[in-house]
Amino acid sequence: MNGGPVTGSLAGVRVIEIGTSVAAPMAAQILGDLGADVIKVERLGTGDDSRSWAPPHWDGAGVTYLSLNRNKRSLALDFKDAAGRDVLERLVSGADVLIQNLRPGALASAGFTTERLRELNNRLIYIEMTGFGASGPQAGKPAYDPLLQAYSGIVSITGEDGRAPARVPVSVLDIGTGMWAALAVYEGLRRRDQTGQGTHVELSLLQTALTWMAPTLMSVMAGNAVPQRLGSGLAGVVPYGAFPSSDSWVFISAGNDSAWKRLCRALDAPELDEDDRFRTNVSRASHRPDVTESLSAVTVQFTSAEIIHRLEAAGVPCSPVNTVDEVVVDEQVLSTGALRSLPRHDIPGLTVVNPPMTFDGSYPAFDVPPPPLGADSASVLEDLGLTSDQITRLVECGVVGLDLRGPTDSDGEGT
Amino acid sequence: MNGGPVTGSLAGVRVIEIGTSVAAPMAAQILGDLGADVIKVERLGTGDDSRSWAPPHWDGAGVTYLSLNRNKRSLALDFKDAAGRDVLERLVSGADVLIQNLRPGALASAGFTTERLRELNNRLIYIEMTGFGASGPQAGKPAYDPLLQAYSGIVSITGEDGRAPARVPVSVLDIGTGMWAALAVYEGLRRRDQTGQGTHVELSLLQTALTWMAPTLMSVMAGNAVPQRLGSGLAGVVPYGAFPSSDSWVFISAGNDSAWKRLCRALDAPELDEDDRFRTNVSRASHRPDVTESLSAVTVQFTSAEIIHRLEAAGVPCSPVNTVDEVVVDEQVLSTGALRSLPRHDIPGLTVVNPPMTFDGSYPAFDVPPPPLGADSASVLEDLGLTSDQITRLVECGVVGLDLRGPTDSDGEGT
Repeated sequence: MNGGPVTGSLAGVRVIEIGTSVAAPMAAQILGDLGADVIKVERLGTGDDSRSWAPPHWDGAGVTYLSLNRNKRSLALDFKDAAGRDVLERLVSGADVLIQNLRPGALASAGFTTERLRELNNRLIYIEMTGFGASGPQAGKPAYDPLLQAYSGIVSITGEDGRAPARVPVSVLDIGTGMWAALAVYEGLRRRDQTGQGTHVELSLLQTALTWMAPTLMSVMAGNAVPQRLGSGLAGVVPYGAFPSSDSWVFISAGNDSAWKRLCRALDAPELDEDDRFRTNVSRASHRPDVTESLSAVTVQFTSAEIIHRLEAAGVPCSPVNTVDEVVVDEQVLSTGALRSLPRHDIPGLTVVNPPMTFDGSYPAFDVPPPPLGADSASVLEDLGLTSDQITRLVECGVVGLDLRGPTDSDGEGT
Repeated sequence: MNGGPVTGSLAGVRVIEIGTSVAAPMAAQILGDLGADVIKVERLGTGDDSRSWAPPHWDGAGVTYLSLNRNKRSLALDFKDAAGRDVLERLVSGADVLIQNLRPGALASAGFTTERLRELNNRLIYIEMTGFGASGPQAGKPAYDPLLQAYSGIVSITGEDGRAPARVPVSVLDIGTGMWAALAVYEGLRRRDQTGQGTHVELSLLQTALTWMAPTLMSVMAGNAVPQRLGSGLAGVVPYGAFPSSDSWVFISAGNDSAWKRLCRALDAPELDEDDRFRTNVSRASHRPDVTESLSAVTVQFTSAEIIHRLEAAGVPCSPVNTVDEVVVDEQVLSTGALRSLPRHDIPGLTVVNPPMTFDGSYPAFDVPPPPLGADSASVLEDLGLTSDQITRLVECGVVGLDLRGPTDSDGEGT
């Protein structure tokens, strides 16, 4: 059953990514992880914006860039120039998928409207990502994950009641849209198998945000109260959330009355168990601040490890609130195999996070670290049939950029 | 190009969901939205746990259940009983996909080990979801989204510095794992097309969490500082986040020095523009609390609408911090078409959130609202070739449950 790593089913599928920052690079990386031949088309000189983002860096390269661009070839190309446009047209003509998240209208104004793309290749699956969708009063505005978190109501329910709203500190809209886009590519490939035709798929950060918020939006549409910020808590279930220990924080869930009893006994706190205000979940919910204060006064007397030990023995769901440095060395995290070495010649320690799924016990086989800008320009143009003279001329005209450091030193590079 | 709604490519693909709560129901719903025939196998009497979750409800039904179970048929079945096991074996034998997120080991102990499933159907794509993965010291523990947010470091960076950590108030791990699982089903179908064989796919909330955290984990593995809680802020970019207005909050991003100047001028605050401490982003980042305090004192003098108006005119990225009741009536939200009427006879106003992508301008065609428990037991068993006498006997023995209210009153129901 476990035959070792296998390349994903997308081997032979050619994906052109004209992506920047997070959403389109994420979509294309998923496809590359699963075997697709991904050609990342980047601006000459600077490339993907995330290459030049502020620290944190890893050996001089931005970690966001490094987290989103493995299993790709980098072509540095000025496709606004006529000769560059010709190169991109040839790429599109031979591609299965085009994914882009430039500013709304930017690709069309460079000559690549949806109609033109269809003329070039009516089997193309064209994935277009925006911030706010194709129409409406906000269409055309740029796509920033945190601003869309604010627009879609996510910020309004994140953080503590009575204090400033917070944001979700991971890119749920950018990365989420990338995940939906990858799914849409598979759907597009199946539709093409059935009809012979490509598809134009439109996604937006706003629509992704509404998906995350679906139960909350439905609750309000049903006429229920507008949800408020609850810190780490959950509406109607008390206690539930992060409580202080003597050395850190512990996440505790004791929403039913039996779990509450077990919690009080496990922490040697009979006075809480006997408090009439705290006897039922309904009553605890109406005394939420009192429960939080009383329980915190108990939990803070123990170390996190001691609390976890006692609550696990008592069958009360709980977890340490791990910090990020604890996570990267955690035994359970390491046992999943999710952290994967993917060295690049100039970043020998580079470690990435696997896609979160194994097939018959193995993660997909891949070995191409994120490329330096233009590292694969020559190989991509050779694949298109250009001669080395033609390539040299494009470089001299400033239409194509090469990485003078040469390609990345990986066995699988450029396939 | 816009030919109207089309059923997704998964028509004819049969999916068995033995799911509860969020992750497996989400995966199966995505597949159903895209055309798959999804049979949801539920416990007699109570069904999916989310059916009986505490409010919020919509006309008596839990909104989480309603948000995750459209485009499915409900079969209420006791598959621990011998006759019920036989029914499930027949279902599995004829299925393309099985998705389950029961407690680790529960399905195997009912007789459905991975090996047995393969014996029954070697073309089956078997999707298994857990909290912590298949091995390691925490394997076997149940999967709770907030506890895994705590375990994986997400809680440690959510909320405000110096205060209790918060959680992400949307189910990024449950729903995220469902999205990855749906993607894995497409990958499994392609692999099967190529090899003739099914696949066993394992996913976990922990692995999904690590994917959300990838850049943060990589930053720490590279030797950078452990990230802290920043409320709505962003490390190294100041000002950035939610600022108070006279009537609400506004999200402002003015990370570069030119945007800062424009922001100060747009809000008639030359004293901020002239403050030496605030002249460069580096200096503002080292005076983060002072910037927040000074800028908040300015923003709080304007309404949100006035701030948005001024900042948009000045080209400073910003967004209202919309509350959920504002989101469901927002003109841009409505213009996306993401909110979709899907009436059920007992919930006539039921509105759901579309999958966040259109194909050639249309969302996928579908019209089956979330079924009452056992609503489709009879039709599913008839599909398996059982006679009405056999079905009656299974019901009388307590192996199969029917919904006495009859099937949902939708045209597309049960197809």
